[in-house]
Amino acid sequence: MHTVDLNCDIGESFGAYAMGLDARVIPLASSVNVACGMHAGDPLVMERTVALAAEASVAVGAHPGYPDLQGFGRRDMALSPREVRAFTLYQIGALAAFCQAQGVALRHVKPHGQLYNRAARDRACADAIADAVRSFDSKLVLVGLAGGQLIEAGRAAGLRTASEFFADRNYTQHGTLVPRTQPNAVLTDETAAAKRVVQAVREGWVESVEGARVPVAADTICTHGDNEHALAFVRLLRQELSAAGVEVRPL
Amino acid sequence: MHTVDLNCDIGESFGAYAMGLDARVIPLASSVNVACGMHAGDPLVMERTVALAAEASVAVGAHPGYPDLQGFGRRDMALSPREVRAFTLYQIGALAAFCQAQGVALRHVKPHGQLYNRAARDRACADAIADAVRSFDSKLVLVGLAGGQLIEAGRAAGLRTASEFFADRNYTQHGTLVPRTQPNAVLTDETAAAKRVVQAVREGWVESVEGARVPVAADTICTHGDNEHALAFVRLLRQELSAAGVEVRPL
Amino acid sequence: MHTVDLNCDIGESFGAYAMGLDARVIPLASSVNVACGMHAGDPLVMERTVALAAEASVAVGAHPGYPDLQGFGRRDMALSPREVRAFTLYQIGALAAFCQAQGVALRHVKPHGQLYNRAARDRACADAIADAVRSFDSKLVLVGLAGGQLIEAGRAAGLRTASEFFADRNYTQHGTLVPRTQPNAVLTDETAAAKRVVQAVREGWVESVEGARVPVAADTICTHGDNEHALAFVRLLRQELSAAGVEVRPL
Amino acid sequence: MHTVDLNCDIGESFGAYAMGLDARVIPLASSVNVACGMHAGDPLVMERTVALAAEASVAVGAHPGYPDLQGFGRRDMALSPREVRAFTLYQIGALAAFCQAQGVALRHVKPHGQLYNRAARDRACADAIADAVRSFDSKLVLVGLAGGQLIEAGRAAGLRTASEFFADRNYTQHGTLVPRTQPNAVLTDETAAAKRVVQAVREGWVESVEGARVPVAADTICTHGDNEHALAFVRLLRQELSAAGVEVRPL
Repeated sequence: MHTVDLNCDIGESFGAYAMGLDARVIPLASSVNVACGMHAGDPLVMERTVALAAEASVAVGAHPGYPDLQGFGRRDMALSPREVRAFTLYQIGALAAFCQAQGVALRHVKPHGQLYNRAARDRACADAIADAVRSFDSKLVLVGLAGGQLIEAGRAAGLRTASEFFADRNYTQHGTLVPRTQPNAVLTDETAAAKRVVQAVREGWVESVEGARVPVAADTICTHGDNEHALAFVRLLRQELSAAGVEVRPL
Repeated sequence: MHTVDLNCDIGESFGAYAMGLDARVIPLASSVNVACGMHAGDPLVMERTVALAAEASVAVGAHPGYPDLQGFGRRDMALSPREVRAFTLYQIGALAAFCQAQGVALRHVKPHGQLYNRAARDRACADAIADAVRSFDSKLVLVGLAGGQLIEAGRAAGLRTASEFFADRNYTQHGTLVPRTQPNAVLTDETAAAKRVVQAVREGWVESVEGARVPVAADTICTHGDNEHALAFVRLLRQELSAAGVEVRPL
Repeated sequence: MHTVDLNCDIGESFGAYAMGLDARVIPLASSVNVACGMHAGDPLVMERTVALAAEASVAVGAHPGYPDLQGFGRRDMALSPREVRAFTLYQIGALAAFCQAQGVALRHVKPHGQLYNRAARDRACADAIADAVRSFDSKLVLVGLAGGQLIEAGRAAGLRTASEFFADRNYTQHGTLVPRTQPNAVLTDETAAAKRVVQAVREGWVESVEGARVPVAADTICTHGDNEHALAFVRLLRQELSAAGVEVRPL
Repeated sequence: MHTVDLNCDIGESFGAYAMGLDARVIPLASSVNVACGMHAGDPLVMERTVALAAEASVAVGAHPGYPDLQGFGRRDMALSPREVRAFTLYQIGALAAFCQAQGVALRHVKPHGQLYNRAARDRACADAIADAVRSFDSKLVLVGLAGGQLIEAGRAAGLRTASEFFADRNYTQHGTLVPRTQPNAVLTDETAAAKRVVQAVREGWVESVEGARVPVAADTICTHGDNEHALAFVRLLRQELSAAGVEVRPL
């Protein structure tokens, strides 16, 4: 039987600033990536977020990002590999403390934003993240872009990895995401997007924008809880997966 | 045989800003309190500091403070007990990650600056810190001002506690520190200060500024590595302790 | 003819974090207080906010707060008067730069959150703020709680001051706000609240919770743009003021 | 008669963290660039630094940097031109407030670290800085790398510009700095370095590492006050300039 994980970034509120419909998207996901206070989140938010995840019995992972709250971790920063390793370790540890205090297992690590993007293409950055994860707990699963450097780095470090597939993004014939700067970067037909996920999970390929059949790994699907529309898509995706006999479960 | 711990705050550099003669004071201490990135320290500094401590085989503890780098955690902030608990947990976890990655045991927790001061007199704050420590790892030793609320809170939480004695501060007849706002707050005769430590450790009392014999616990002595002068005092203190047959060892 | 100013805190978004219905509340106010990047706001938000205010022709003021984004400036911090003065000056200058670049006049300064509260009761803090304002531009209007220390400090510094009246808060017989910790701190009957504002503006008094007629200054009324409900109240307030022949205009 | 400006970055301390021998280097410079609280400096430091500069009668300029205290503004950050403009404006305004409060004129703007480097090669970034300066005060002098994009952008914006020459760095035959990654990036013979400055100021050229005579503008020389060694070099430089009949004075 085919299985897939649905992951979602949560815990991105900060102080008086609310972000995301966490309480509602968490039960629709099977894994959640919790912000760790650098690009988003703060200690109170982290505590509450781990509690919400535990209540819903979803798998909890750390979601480390660049130390850039104002840029939400979406601006590239020229951190050295040593800095990337240390910042990743710091954030994993901070989140792990809230898990430990609540008796919740920490299962995976997925970098955020530009750290994720850079780790997909820059092997030194990817190795730094993989080494931080391995040196903290070698049983953690490392989540990265399917086909990207982080997956390679994770394997080289002896970690279990999970390849992430983007439901709403188009792929090139090389298996990379069509850059957001291009008009056809994002899929707008949601039913088609959901069906494409099912195909990627069951058959292991996606049709590229050039019309080619490109092999792709899809261990976990990136979903969002930003607004009602995003929630509706996760529900649709679950229906399509269920209808196709694909079980949604954590990594 | 009498024993005592000598603790020192370290890892207070931040980015390009250097602070403290860490490499030189660490071998003179038996325990070190490592800043965790809120009032001081950053991930690279924490990694390096844990490595220095491990090399010198001193006991490593977390030194959480208020989230106020510009104020160095020395300005009081009206954090709620829930905030104190979450910020403490966050910082312990962050430091623990560097310990874990380097195979170093985390032994104790000592709050910093105004968080330390407030925890000495405010039971709700003290309970919040104790609960953070207990819920993270109930085998950690909680270090606080001798006779203060944090020691009480730690005991109530079932933790091992260590009462801290200040070598360079005068005490009132109630066993509290003479406030820094008063002219006789600080002891300037260093030999007298060192001898007073020996007395506190061996006989359990200190002479107050009023001339009274006040009972005091002295499980660990607060030392500093800010400058040459501070280092010289730690050396003097070790000599006096050694001469008096008191062994310096971690908690 | 009676006149009153309606002021509103705006520009409190930060990076990816949106807060407040600024574009909609600005035209309902006559003065706006723009966050300056310490408790809220960031350079891009400040630039956009000044532009919105200029477009609506409302008077622009600086809204300095404690350097505590995570606490939104609502947690008390033990800043010294020198720190309060320097942080206030810094924030006024930062906002003034965006005003200057857009050819917009900076008209007033109103402290935020706990800085506002402390300035209302602590004369040294109030003097520090007044001195920052005076030394930057002695033609700026200083806005503070009616009857509070900041108004006194502003007058002593030779500044024009504006006393702020809270539409939704109850007053004690001493003219102070009923603390939020008490059940009757907030007025819930909005029509009554609006009528009370009209009375304060036209007749200069408010009925205290004890039933006493307490004299009160009401140069400017604190309004909010947090949500639809808050906007509706500002509209109601404008109607009542208009019906009573009170003109709404900037300080 | 030939003249040149000697500029120095100052005001880089932060809270409890001291950096630079400001009080001693300021009298040796003719212009100082004051950190504005983003990559270094804080409101108290800025106030004190402006006072020191005023006392020594040196020209005061703003030294805006990336919002990255931990990286000291030396890590590249992918700020958009709009962000660069807004962050520059914010920092200039903040510093200008301290100048205004002390009756000190703000004379120039020189970007810091990676913002300086990026502005030297990236015209969009350079334009953003120039536009921030121009829109704040078109009489400010914009300081940038001799031959770099910032000088071009400043001229295009109608600003007075000042080309900076680096006493301790080698130049390529294209008039650019030899990258720090290369072994011969830095000049170690200080007397030779000082003589080279004199030559650049008086004759307008420098000998490149390839042995070519490269024309170079040298309106202002970058000096440092980090340590005794740096101070000694500034003194040596002043002697050589004086001996060659070059007058040191502000832009």
